[in-house]
Amino acid sequence: MIKHALNVTREADFAAWYQAVISEADLAEESGVRGCMVIRPWGYGIWERIQRLLDDRIKATGHENCYFPLFIPLSYFEKEAEHVDGFAKEMAVVTHHRLVQKDGKLVPDPEAKLEEPLVVRPTSETVIGAAFSRWVQSWRDLPVLINQWANVVRWEMRTRMFLRTSEFLWQEGHTAHASEAEAREETLKMLEVYRSFAEDCLAMPVVAGEKPENERFPGAVSTYSIEAMMQDGKALQAGTSHFLGTTFSSAQNIRFQNAEGELELAQTTSWGVSTRMIGGVIMVHGDDDGLRVPPRIAPWQIVIVPMLRDQPEDQAIVDYCKNLQQQLSVLSVFGEPVRALLDLRPAKAATKRWGWVKKGAPIVIEVGGRDVAGANVSVIRRDRLYREDGKLDSAIVAQAQFVDEATQMLESIQHALHSQARERMDANITRGITDFADLEKAFDGAKPGWVEVNWSKPGGAELDKVVERLKALKLTFRNVPGDAAAAEGACIFTGAPAVERILVARAY
Amino acid sequence: MIKHALNVTREADFAAWYQAVISEADLAEESGVRGCMVIRPWGYGIWERIQRLLDDRIKATGHENCYFPLFIPLSYFEKEAEHVDGFAKEMAVVTHHRLVQKDGKLVPDPEAKLEEPLVVRPTSETVIGAAFSRWVQSWRDLPVLINQWANVVRWEMRTRMFLRTSEFLWQEGHTAHASEAEAREETLKMLEVYRSFAEDCLAMPVVAGEKPENERFPGAVSTYSIEAMMQDGKALQAGTSHFLGTTFSSAQNIRFQNAEGELELAQTTSWGVSTRMIGGVIMVHGDDDGLRVPPRIAPWQIVIVPMLRDQPEDQAIVDYCKNLQQQLSVLSVFGEPVRALLDLRPAKAATKRWGWVKKGAPIVIEVGGRDVAGANVSVIRRDRLYREDGKLDSAIVAQAQFVDEATQMLESIQHALHSQARERMDANITRGITDFADLEKAFDGAKPGWVEVNWSKPGGAELDKVVERLKALKLTFRNVPGDAAAAEGACIFTGAPAVERILVARAY
Repeated sequence: MIKHALNVTREADFAAWYQAVISEADLAEESGVRGCMVIRPWGYGIWERIQRLLDDRIKATGHENCYFPLFIPLSYFEKEAEHVDGFAKEMAVVTHHRLVQKDGKLVPDPEAKLEEPLVVRPTSETVIGAAFSRWVQSWRDLPVLINQWANVVRWEMRTRMFLRTSEFLWQEGHTAHASEAEAREETLKMLEVYRSFAEDCLAMPVVAGEKPENERFPGAVSTYSIEAMMQDGKALQAGTSHFLGTTFSSAQNIRFQNAEGELELAQTTSWGVSTRMIGGVIMVHGDDDGLRVPPRIAPWQIVIVPMLRDQPEDQAIVDYCKNLQQQLSVLSVFGEPVRALLDLRPAKAATKRWGWVKKGAPIVIEVGGRDVAGANVSVIRRDRLYREDGKLDSAIVAQAQFVDEATQMLESIQHALHSQARERMDANITRGITDFADLEKAFDGAKPGWVEVNWSKPGGAELDKVVERLKALKLTFRNVPGDAAAAEGACIFTGAPAVERILVARAY
Repeated sequence: MIKHALNVTREADFAAWYQAVISEADLAEESGVRGCMVIRPWGYGIWERIQRLLDDRIKATGHENCYFPLFIPLSYFEKEAEHVDGFAKEMAVVTHHRLVQKDGKLVPDPEAKLEEPLVVRPTSETVIGAAFSRWVQSWRDLPVLINQWANVVRWEMRTRMFLRTSEFLWQEGHTAHASEAEAREETLKMLEVYRSFAEDCLAMPVVAGEKPENERFPGAVSTYSIEAMMQDGKALQAGTSHFLGTTFSSAQNIRFQNAEGELELAQTTSWGVSTRMIGGVIMVHGDDDGLRVPPRIAPWQIVIVPMLRDQPEDQAIVDYCKNLQQQLSVLSVFGEPVRALLDLRPAKAATKRWGWVKKGAPIVIEVGGRDVAGANVSVIRRDRLYREDGKLDSAIVAQAQFVDEATQMLESIQHALHSQARERMDANITRGITDFADLEKAFDGAKPGWVEVNWSKPGGAELDKVVERLKALKLTFRNVPGDAAAAEGACIFTGAPAVERILVARAY
């Protein structure tokens, strides 16, 4: 029986396992500030990789980065009722701009109360819309294609690291267009950017599709999402793209003169992904030994651990490792230089090895005196940690051979993580259920997966009733997969003729 | 006489000229939120270049990026009196976490008042110190070398875009060490990183040195800065590095067991640069036609403007330009690929040309039908905009020759901007003044430059008196240049024997 590196397994307690991975892989920690986390170097390093790769894609599709204010005056929100209803309950509000000492304690200075309170942005449609209204006069000014990387705050009552924190990091794209067709095309284009990014870079299979009415972003005409399946079968919404129609252009007065000289409202979109994605990576790729980071987003892809023994031969081992690191660093994989680290911290080699296993570095290389003598290295692949007999699979390989094969090995690990996740997801989506009782039964087990059902796409009060029924079972609608088969038969909820297929799942 | 692109010159009104550059180069604009600006794509693109290049240097010196909470509980500040005194007057305070409708208006919900108000970080020593106290137990955990890229808020009464805004973007490095010597070495190492970064990447000559006591960061034992000279002769503090001793380690309890098993307080440092640097770039390199961006930090180094005339031959021009862009994009300069843009926006070529001149793109290429026929391009170098006769210096060059020489031209522009600024700074630092009356006289003119004087380094009340005298003349101490000559003679302020030389200047 394998003795795993974590002291809790996914099987025994998935929620506790998730926290253990975050802690043991040094990804993040509680900050002491309610609902806010500290993102530690390994966690932030993954976020930097996500930023770099996604930013390239955002720019390649013609968007430019900007920066807009953290604070939004209350009056900006008052202009769009539905939007404010969606966020008013979770907004951090700045009311003072100075502190004073009072009875030996610091307090907000009553003399420094703001005339108009400021909200810490929960999302930036309103303040960016106000900028767009200054920028857009004529059809020639369109489209406006903007993105920003920023922190946002939504005051959450129950928080969970990466998945739901009061402050989180994200990118938010905001665009304005001359026609609805163009804005809808943009919404779907960015959904596809997110889908392919999740699959190609995070090795995280997702289902891209449109959200039902009740799950729309406050103020949106259509909301699309990518949904990933976690190892406990729950869904994680990992990115959203919204067609906003003229909701924000009417509220913020984004008007342009069209080619015929008439004044029109612009059509806007917004789309975002956040540090929540890291939570998804953990729950898709982690195992009972910690995290497994897909090579494309690993801050270090290959970590070299010299096995030193405070002996004179140590220097030869270090030199050998440095040489190896140099050989690896000039290689290229996924169109970038290989990221190879030589870990020279003052700690035992075994401690370091297991530290990197828990962090999920794709390849860990150990080098001892015997390896140097034989011109070998000991190779641990994070995607194949144990042999069939349950022992750690540390393969002794000629150094030259490892260097030859290193980039291919990284590609193979990236591919393996994706395949495993894809197979699991595909195996756990149930189709063919035709009545509600069977739907209920499908979610009886411990790891129930998702169910795709035919439905009639009810709206308004009729939809609310369906949503309530699902809620009683802790179920939610995820999305209508863009690549689902055509609907057939009757709606499982209303009995009316089905018009499309929708995913039902428990969700984070 | 040259008709310049801006409608105000540096000579006529430097402050108005500064605002005109920001507006005409599309760098930033007022946001409608008090004291906060919108950083537009060209301004943010420069910031992204600064981030990329400085981040590489911060990582190359062994630091890792993290992310800490935006909000800091008041109690964290109460622990360090001097620090809170320095910032209490300009802190944005969050007091509520929900809004409600009242009489048709949104207001902070009285039912959702925070038990302990939260401050929006003005700087993160306190909250990062709290993390360090969790991370550091033994000498083996040291040094801790951390950096974060973040937004911070200091409620400023009088704001000026990039130079002084209520919210700004920056990086803040925070480190903890086992010994004072090592922490002091770190402080100076990062000062040197800033100095060489400013000179090499921003082409902005600076003087690096220690700040006098009255200019220290609240809580610091020693503060160092880099100071740049603007074209109006004023100084701009463009980066600071602080040795904090045990100020924050005592307040936040950062203790470690040393090799002898005894408990010691860690020695900490912090250092930062901000979007203020962009204000420096404007005032060092801008001219009466707008901004001139040093090629290393230019979002686009070469901009190609096709001169289209809605004629059938337009397509041949566009194809020619695309081919040119491709040839340029595979070139490498300053160790990175050349960034070449083909500007296909629907606007007149002359409008685009002057737009890019005002933005300060280092090289603007224009291509018309005649250029295509002759296999030529028309080249405008932003550092040499006019010929001696006052006409725009647009040189017709064989396309192949331009491609051959493009990277060298970019290097030459980077070098020219640096040389011009360096010469101006060197020519405007006055030395040899030995009495206060002459110092006063030296600041009589419109663009007075800086004065380096011998002083006795007084402290406490004696220093306060000197500072007051300078303040009456709108003068400040900048720093004690690390490379200044040895002190000689008497202190210009106290008459006591001088111990070092210090810079006096008007400042932003």
